[in-house]
Amino acid sequence: MIVHPVIELEPWRLRETRLDLEVLGQSESIFALANGHIGLRANLDEGEPQAILGTYLNGCYELHPLPYAEAGYGYPESGQTVVNVTDGKIIRLLVDDEPFDVRYGTLLGHERELDLRAGVLRRRVEWRSPTGQAVRVSSTRLVSFAQRAVAAILYEVEPLDGSASVVLQSELVANEPPPSRGRDPRQAVTLNAPLRSEWFTHRDAHALLVHVTRESGLRVAAAMDHLVQGPEGTESRSESEPDLARLTVAAVLERGQCLRLVKFLAYGWSAQRSLPAVRDQVEGALAMARHRGWEGLLADQRAYLDGFWRRADVEIEGDPELQHAVRFALFQVLQAGARAERRAIPAKGLTGPGYDGHTFWDMETFVLPVLTYTAPTAVADALRWRHSTLPMARERAQQLGLEGAAFPWRTIHGEECSGYWPAGTAAFHINADIADAVVRYQRATEDPEFEREIGLELLVETARLWRSLGHRHEEGEFEIDGVTGPDEYSALADNNVYTNLMAQQNLRAAADAAEAHPDRAAELGIDPEEIEDWRAAAEAMRIPYDERLGVHPQAEGFTRHERWDFERTRPDQYPLLLHFPYFDIYRKQVVKQADLVLALHLRGDAFTPEQKARDFAYYEALTVRDSSLSACTQAVVAAEVGHVELAYDYLGEAALMDLHDLEHNVADGVHIASLAGAWIAIVAGLGGMRDHGGELSFAPRLPAALTRLAFRITFQRRLLEVAADREQVTYRLLEGEPLRIVHDGEPLLVTTGAPVTRPALPVPDLPRPAQPPGREPARRVPRT
Amino acid sequence: MIVHPVIELEPWRLRETRLDLEVLGQSESIFALANGHIGLRANLDEGEPQAILGTYLNGCYELHPLPYAEAGYGYPESGQTVVNVTDGKIIRLLVDDEPFDVRYGTLLGHERELDLRAGVLRRRVEWRSPTGQAVRVSSTRLVSFAQRAVAAILYEVEPLDGSASVVLQSELVANEPPPSRGRDPRQAVTLNAPLRSEWFTHRDAHALLVHVTRESGLRVAAAMDHLVQGPEGTESRSESEPDLARLTVAAVLERGQCLRLVKFLAYGWSAQRSLPAVRDQVEGALAMARHRGWEGLLADQRAYLDGFWRRADVEIEGDPELQHAVRFALFQVLQAGARAERRAIPAKGLTGPGYDGHTFWDMETFVLPVLTYTAPTAVADALRWRHSTLPMARERAQQLGLEGAAFPWRTIHGEECSGYWPAGTAAFHINADIADAVVRYQRATEDPEFEREIGLELLVETARLWRSLGHRHEEGEFEIDGVTGPDEYSALADNNVYTNLMAQQNLRAAADAAEAHPDRAAELGIDPEEIEDWRAAAEAMRIPYDERLGVHPQAEGFTRHERWDFERTRPDQYPLLLHFPYFDIYRKQVVKQADLVLALHLRGDAFTPEQKARDFAYYEALTVRDSSLSACTQAVVAAEVGHVELAYDYLGEAALMDLHDLEHNVADGVHIASLAGAWIAIVAGLGGMRDHGGELSFAPRLPAALTRLAFRITFQRRLLEVAADREQVTYRLLEGEPLRIVHDGEPLLVTTGAPVTRPALPVPDLPRPAQPPGREPARRVPRT
Repeated sequence: MIVHPVIELEPWRLRETRLDLEVLGQSESIFALANGHIGLRANLDEGEPQAILGTYLNGCYELHPLPYAEAGYGYPESGQTVVNVTDGKIIRLLVDDEPFDVRYGTLLGHERELDLRAGVLRRRVEWRSPTGQAVRVSSTRLVSFAQRAVAAILYEVEPLDGSASVVLQSELVANEPPPSRGRDPRQAVTLNAPLRSEWFTHRDAHALLVHVTRESGLRVAAAMDHLVQGPEGTESRSESEPDLARLTVAAVLERGQCLRLVKFLAYGWSAQRSLPAVRDQVEGALAMARHRGWEGLLADQRAYLDGFWRRADVEIEGDPELQHAVRFALFQVLQAGARAERRAIPAKGLTGPGYDGHTFWDMETFVLPVLTYTAPTAVADALRWRHSTLPMARERAQQLGLEGAAFPWRTIHGEECSGYWPAGTAAFHINADIADAVVRYQRATEDPEFEREIGLELLVETARLWRSLGHRHEEGEFEIDGVTGPDEYSALADNNVYTNLMAQQNLRAAADAAEAHPDRAAELGIDPEEIEDWRAAAEAMRIPYDERLGVHPQAEGFTRHERWDFERTRPDQYPLLLHFPYFDIYRKQVVKQADLVLALHLRGDAFTPEQKARDFAYYEALTVRDSSLSACTQAVVAAEVGHVELAYDYLGEAALMDLHDLEHNVADGVHIASLAGAWIAIVAGLGGMRDHGGELSFAPRLPAALTRLAFRITFQRRLLEVAADREQVTYRLLEGEPLRIVHDGEPLLVTTGAPVTRPALPVPDLPRPAQPPGREPARRVPRT
Repeated sequence: MIVHPVIELEPWRLRETRLDLEVLGQSESIFALANGHIGLRANLDEGEPQAILGTYLNGCYELHPLPYAEAGYGYPESGQTVVNVTDGKIIRLLVDDEPFDVRYGTLLGHERELDLRAGVLRRRVEWRSPTGQAVRVSSTRLVSFAQRAVAAILYEVEPLDGSASVVLQSELVANEPPPSRGRDPRQAVTLNAPLRSEWFTHRDAHALLVHVTRESGLRVAAAMDHLVQGPEGTESRSESEPDLARLTVAAVLERGQCLRLVKFLAYGWSAQRSLPAVRDQVEGALAMARHRGWEGLLADQRAYLDGFWRRADVEIEGDPELQHAVRFALFQVLQAGARAERRAIPAKGLTGPGYDGHTFWDMETFVLPVLTYTAPTAVADALRWRHSTLPMARERAQQLGLEGAAFPWRTIHGEECSGYWPAGTAAFHINADIADAVVRYQRATEDPEFEREIGLELLVETARLWRSLGHRHEEGEFEIDGVTGPDEYSALADNNVYTNLMAQQNLRAAADAAEAHPDRAAELGIDPEEIEDWRAAAEAMRIPYDERLGVHPQAEGFTRHERWDFERTRPDQYPLLLHFPYFDIYRKQVVKQADLVLALHLRGDAFTPEQKARDFAYYEALTVRDSSLSACTQAVVAAEVGHVELAYDYLGEAALMDLHDLEHNVADGVHIASLAGAWIAIVAGLGGMRDHGGELSFAPRLPAALTRLAFRITFQRRLLEVAADREQVTYRLLEGEPLRIVHDGEPLLVTTGAPVTRPALPVPDLPRPAQPPGREPARRVPRT
């Protein structure tokens, strides 16, 4: 857990006031900058000390063999892992020949701040070298939202005592040594020198390196250019070699003088384009960066973020820490998805190598719902990426003996990269999760071109998968056997309720879409019989129910299993997956992450309020939250069934997952889906927002600590603000045509200039449900 | 499939009359010689051509890392694989400087025969060299049953035309190059040069090599000595180096002259003993071999086998091929287990590297039942080996969070080596299978020392495992969830009927044994409460039953699953595991090998005759026999429920599995358990022998083709012969005190000198049950 004094949350700022090398990896992730295309970990400018050096380009991966102790048909043979590409962040400093390194000499002062409105990472260090020379180093780093191929750094150094000889080495470094890693399966594969040099050049203050990844054959270009401002006599010299380009600046600074370097960085990669083409592409981006200049890049960044916050901000009164954490969360979600542009949004965004840089179902289930209502074009891009992988998903389905498309459990490029099929191939729910994201995006945006070009085919190919994966039992029910649901502490069960309900929605959505676009449907070979078949399968979908206990089993037989012995499980034995064998975890009643409870949220239309309350209570007692993808969903359903204080606790956990390093692995990158979950916990949880069937409904209820909650969402080209305080709830349409919404069951029409106000909803006083011993969420106590 | 003309079955002989290089690997396995301690594949004397060179010492293995694409808690990190140790079979021949190699020159004649009574492999070749010189080569090879550390070869060469210059090179060769292997998971790991030289020496016609395996650190010694007889002027010279020792014999032979070489081989290995100790051990064995001489070794071999056949022979009239195949099967089972002496009996015996030389549950379930009634001391040895691995099994149980002992799914030394836990760790039934073998051996031998020293602890520790693995459902039943039964086309199911019934027997046997030996039980920490707890769990054991279909589901929910689409499965898509993903195979009704049907055999006391008939018919339609461990069990239950002709067909398949290479992998070694299954299909199938509760019962019924069946079994120090023909069944006690048996429900007392005869039992005329299309067993048509 990151010690609190290190990171402070301020309005619109995340500030680190002390450099704690123990949590260096965590801060590298949390202060990382990205725009969805380029990601720079918050490594120190001078490169060392470091936990994990990381510079990432979305979609740029290396291949590695997936080994198996015992081979099996259909096992993926090749894995993909994110590449630490050419590092352009490095600016080394020598003061009177002493390398600036915080591990030596004396650190007089250290401060870093991530500015959520300016979109920059600022650093200010005062350091006395082992030989006694004190300097102040200031740097400001940005990864441009406006220019997706561009990053830039302003670096300034000034002596604090007398005259100092200063040398700056601004570099591009390829094939940085990888970190040594442990055995945690959530960490990344280690790649050694994955880049083969193809071209290097320098002239004046400019340099460029082009490499090709050894196995995947992707061409990666990185270029830098500089503006140097220093006192009379300042000299610069550039050089380049296969894995290194360097601008060296030498100056003698008197007290009061400053050496100032602006470093422009441009990146590009391509699987297909030639060396000249990729080289020219980054040179072009660099030219535009120079053209805009440092101040221009700052201004563009600010303008981009102003626009985002105007449409997406969430305001919380009564819990400043939560307020800041939620803005941090939204900022990270934006950084992950803003300019991904037909690439995936990885589980860790572009902040670290965790999970090998793979994208999972949480993109569609947790990240895209947030972006749907805050930055919908990013959703269209992400789903266009999924659509672009359809040929691979069709091939995978065919390999598995199925119809339609089987999307991968984990991937960068589109091929299945899961080396453990019970929690990979068998987790077919990803297909329904993609369909769910399509349906949500389409209802929220009414984008007919997307529907025809992208949405229909995604819905149809996933529906075909379900139709072939399930079977009709002799007694008429449609059953889906031997699959793994969201909960990774169960596997290979029959009729997982979440999976079946999501598949049901998928089948119906495909039928609706095919009927809405008969010409495109005909092109996809759909006839009325197939549509009828989908509807019939959806209608007959088996949803098991345990009459004895009066709850839904997570899957067939689940509620007959032995309950996990929580009482004998020590606190240090969580997460269970690192301390107990899968065989034992799978066969007992213990839940890693919301599964049935996620169905209560996403398919809330399929349950009665009484069922929700009973099911929620039952699964609360079994859910250990060893996944970061649980607290937010528990917050949502807790709030719905009336446990508003519990929802608030879970919201706190989701929002502070990374800032407090609750999963102990934020060093590998932040958890984008959990950060998205903070928004979900607020908007769908405390705000009660649901979008079943395209109807937007709300039921805000505040926990005792909060005095006000307000959030803004974009919906069908409108901008709506929902604000709740102790007395009332106000719906304010800020942009667009009048909008029909539902407040706690009551239909409302909201028009611009005419806010609608309703009295605050009562918060029931219910006994708090029990969690497994030791796994209760921390009670949320606002800190100011 | 091995083409019939190549291998001929003759009374007491297996003869190969043509060298077909296409089936060289198969013949290397089938003609392999072993005694349970040393195994020599039937590689040609001259070493080449070869499919797989193989010389094995039981228990001698090398370690290799087990890789995983995604790691998991409790996954074994280290695998064990059988080592091809120093090859002492090699005798190269040069004729007028031309190496004798059947791929060059002209093979004028080739014949090999495995003599099942003499216990030798004879080879006779006539060959004309490329330069036109014709020679006759005769060799006879034996691996001694009497001296377990000894093998020997008689090698003779004579010119057929005129004078010939002949050189023999008799060798010990270490680190032979491994065969290149494919991707079939049933094949072995490839080891390159696993042996590190520790010592080599030679003097006169004698040489010795000592090596240590690189990772496992086992010391292996091989020594040879020779007797050379040739014409005047014959010269010998020996030499040695780290991986090679060689005796070179040079002679000029005139027509009618013969060069005769007797090669004595001795082997030893140890994990603990020093170089001098192991070296002296093999020198000692070699001294005794020389002392007995070639004729003495032959005589000892004959005497040993005469004793075996007198107690174990099976006679079949009406189907000569089957008669010979069954004797071959018994011979191979004997070769695998005779002198294993506190080592395991591997799945392939010592005939090939298949399955990495591992031992599985089939040792206890298929091989030991045969040896229990034919060579019971081998059973005591094998179970003493299991007992010696208890510390590892206890540690594994502890690692898995269980009580008692969890024996490995596959191993050589005792540690779990399965790299795929759903079909390894989860297949807990191996524990009950071991208990079953213990109970059977104890009832058949009445060996009180074994019971106290070995049996009790094995029964108790496995019972403790079951008690901790299962749980009491709130409604009172004892349930065992998330395990894998014998059928490898299902996994991780609840309440597998086979597993639960075998565990029930295990629990009861442990309770009985603890009560029978209260002092030993007290030493093992057993109190009356624990015994009562075992009995209660056994009593409450859940046995699921499908009331709708009137059959037992293989496991909970099995009969609700979709039926495999057999109609759309092409013949070339079997075995399914190589053409379909596990996820699809596991979730459908398709059975690789008898599972519920095996329960019908081994726990036949738990089913009514009507249940057996209905269950058998149901599973016949689902069982594809992609495992060699199925036909024999189907034969047993088919015979019991009245399908005697079907039983005969399955018996034929089991008996000819290897001789006809029905699984297409006999090149990796013969299937010892399937060969054992041939005996089981005859004795428990056609003979109807059962041993439930220690009561020996029979109900012989002959298929139409057979005119007589007779078999001999050893039981409680008696030797009993059961003979059935079309008219009658005769029980003849050949040795021992009067014995109570049961004939078709009727108790009989048999005494020596007073055979009891009963009329032959009627064979019902029932409609033949259906198998999956294309997977019907071949109709057995006797060939003469």
